[in-house]
Amino acid sequence: MKAFQVSAPLNYRITDIDVPQAAPGEVLVRVAFAGICGSDMHIIHGDNAFVRFPRITGHEFAGLVEAVGEGVDGIAIGDKVCIDPVISCGHCYPCRIGRPNVCSALEVIGVHRNGGFEERVNVPAANVHHLPEGVGLDAAALVEPYSIAANVLGRMQPHPGDRLLIFGAGVIGLTILQMARALGIEDITVTDVIDARLDTARELGASRTLHGQRDDIEAAVSELTDGEGIPLIADAACVPALLPQMLRMASPAGRIGLLGFNPTPSDLVQLEVIKKELTLVGSRLNNRKFPEVLELMASGRLDPLALVSHRLSFDEMPGAIDMLDHHPERARKVLIQIGT
Amino acid sequence: MKAFQVSAPLNYRITDIDVPQAAPGEVLVRVAFAGICGSDMHIIHGDNAFVRFPRITGHEFAGLVEAVGEGVDGIAIGDKVCIDPVISCGHCYPCRIGRPNVCSALEVIGVHRNGGFEERVNVPAANVHHLPEGVGLDAAALVEPYSIAANVLGRMQPHPGDRLLIFGAGVIGLTILQMARALGIEDITVTDVIDARLDTARELGASRTLHGQRDDIEAAVSELTDGEGIPLIADAACVPALLPQMLRMASPAGRIGLLGFNPTPSDLVQLEVIKKELTLVGSRLNNRKFPEVLELMASGRLDPLALVSHRLSFDEMPGAIDMLDHHPERARKVLIQIGT
Repeated sequence: MKAFQVSAPLNYRITDIDVPQAAPGEVLVRVAFAGICGSDMHIIHGDNAFVRFPRITGHEFAGLVEAVGEGVDGIAIGDKVCIDPVISCGHCYPCRIGRPNVCSALEVIGVHRNGGFEERVNVPAANVHHLPEGVGLDAAALVEPYSIAANVLGRMQPHPGDRLLIFGAGVIGLTILQMARALGIEDITVTDVIDARLDTARELGASRTLHGQRDDIEAAVSELTDGEGIPLIADAACVPALLPQMLRMASPAGRIGLLGFNPTPSDLVQLEVIKKELTLVGSRLNNRKFPEVLELMASGRLDPLALVSHRLSFDEMPGAIDMLDHHPERARKVLIQIGT
Repeated sequence: MKAFQVSAPLNYRITDIDVPQAAPGEVLVRVAFAGICGSDMHIIHGDNAFVRFPRITGHEFAGLVEAVGEGVDGIAIGDKVCIDPVISCGHCYPCRIGRPNVCSALEVIGVHRNGGFEERVNVPAANVHHLPEGVGLDAAALVEPYSIAANVLGRMQPHPGDRLLIFGAGVIGLTILQMARALGIEDITVTDVIDARLDTARELGASRTLHGQRDDIEAAVSELTDGEGIPLIADAACVPALLPQMLRMASPAGRIGLLGFNPTPSDLVQLEVIKKELTLVGSRLNNRKFPEVLELMASGRLDPLALVSHRLSFDEMPGAIDMLDHHPERARKVLIQIGT
C-alpha cells in the first residue's frame, strides 16, 4: 500500500509498504482524507525532537474501519471514523486529574508513531470517534485542528458576551475564529500583518480586523472597549515579543491563551498580571474535544470545509509539501484524498 | 477619638479626630484589633499610587458594631464583626463575571478610604462579616491576610493529593502554608533564604524546607517527584527572576500562583508553558473568601494566632512601624489592640 514516508529531514516520498494488521486493542483504518498541518512541516524539516525517522506523519485524518483487533468492542468493519491523535497512559499525574493531553508518557499519532498519510493505519480503539449523521469523511479529517481551537478556548473559559481578540490569522487563528463563532462568541477581533489573511478572517466571520503594522491595535482595543480591555486573547501568532502588548490589552480578569512552542523568552510584567488578576494558559493538542467538535460540525454551526484551499490526490502530496514550504501564503488548509 | 494617620510619606502619628457617624448603607465599627500588613508599610513609604494623603490605613481589622446606618438590615449594635476591605461596583465586567476583587472601580478600605487603624470606622454593610462561634476578635482581625492565601490557592485549583511548593516564608508565604494545610494539602515544600523563616515554616507544618542559596531546589524537587515536577507553585517571594525556575519545576498541567506587584519583567518561556500546558494565575486581594476563612477558623483547622509575633497597644503602633521598617526580621504578624 502507499504511504507518505519521511526518511530523514527534507527527505520524503510516497513509497510502497506492507499493509499492517489490526493489533489487539487497536483498529485498522482505511484512510479516506487527511489534512496537512504546520506541525507536519516541522517534522519534515527535522524540527520536532520527539520524532524518530523514518516516520509516516499525519495526525488529521478520517476513514473507514477495515479490521478490528482482539478485545475491541463497539467498533465494526465499515464504520466511518476519525481519530484523536492523543494517546495517554491513564495513570500519571496529568491523566489522573483529567489532563491526558499532557500525559507524562504522551504519544501522538503521526509524531511518536505512524499517522494518517498512508492508505491504512492502526490506531488504538480508544482514539476512534464515530462520525455523526451529516459529517462527511472530508470534514471529519479536520476535526483535529478544530480540537486545538476548542482546547485553547476551553482553557480560556469564555463567559457569555465576552469579546475575543485573536492574534494571527493563519490556519490556527482561523480555526479559533470559526470555533469561537460556533461556540457563540459574537465580538471577535483578528489581527495579522498579511492583508489576504485578514480578508479571509472577515469572510469567516471576524467582527473586525486590525493590521499589526498599519493599525494602532492597542488604541483600537481601548476605543472599542472604553478602556476596559478584552477578556479573551488567543495568541495564534506565537511571536514571543507580543506578550507585553497582550497583557496591556487584557481586561481585568482576562484570560490569555498561549499556543507557541517558542524557546525565546517573553517579557512577563507580573505587576500587570496581578493588578488585573489575569490568567495565562498554555494549550497543547486537545483534551478529549473530538465529541464537541463533531457535534458542532453535525449541527451545521462549524464548517471546516470553508477553511480548505486545496483538495489534492495522494500522488500530489509531495508537491503540496513543496508548495507549503516555498509559498505558504498560497494555502490555507490542504486536504489530501488518500483513498476512496 | 484616636487614629493612626499618615499625613505624607513617612509622616505618621496617632492623632485625635472626630468620631464619624454611620452613613446610609454603612455600619460604624468600634475597632478591637487590627493587623499590620506589608502593604500598610508600602503606603507609609508613599509607594502606593492609589493612596491620597492624609490617610488612615489598616485593612485587617475586627470589632463591635456601634451604630447602623439607614437602610442596613441584618446587622445590629453590639455584633462582633470583621471587615472585607474589597469594595466593588457590581456592574463592570469583572463584577459581572464574579471577580469583584478586580472591579474596574475598585476601592479598598484602608487604601482608597480610611481603614481600621482608628477607634471607630465606617464601612459598607456589604463588607461586614459576623464572627462565628469560637472565633475571637483578635483572630478575626487576621481573616484578611488568610483571605489572600485562600484567594491564590483557589485560583490554583488544587486537586486532592497535589503537592505544593511555596516560594518565600514571609507572612504571605506562611499564611498560604497554613491555609493550604487547613484545606487538606498535605505535602508542602517551603523555600526561603532566611533560616529563621524556614524554622517557622516547619513549626507551622511545612513537610520540608529548602534554602534558596544552600540547597539545589530544582534537584530536590526533581528527586521528590521522580522528575514529574510540582503541580502547585505559589510565589510569595515575588522576585521576578525566579519565574523561569518555577516554570521548570512545575509538573505537566501545573498551576503557578503569582502575587508580586513588581514592574520588572520576568522571562516567560512559552515553550515551557505550552509543553506542560501550565496555568499562570495572578491573585489580587480576595474574591469573597471571608466566609471560607471564618469557617476554617471556627472549625479549629486554621489558627491565625500562631502567626502573631507581637501584640501591642494602639499607643505602641508608631514604634511597631519603626521596628517593621528597620528590623522586619524581628516580626511575623503584628497585632494592635485598638479598643477593648
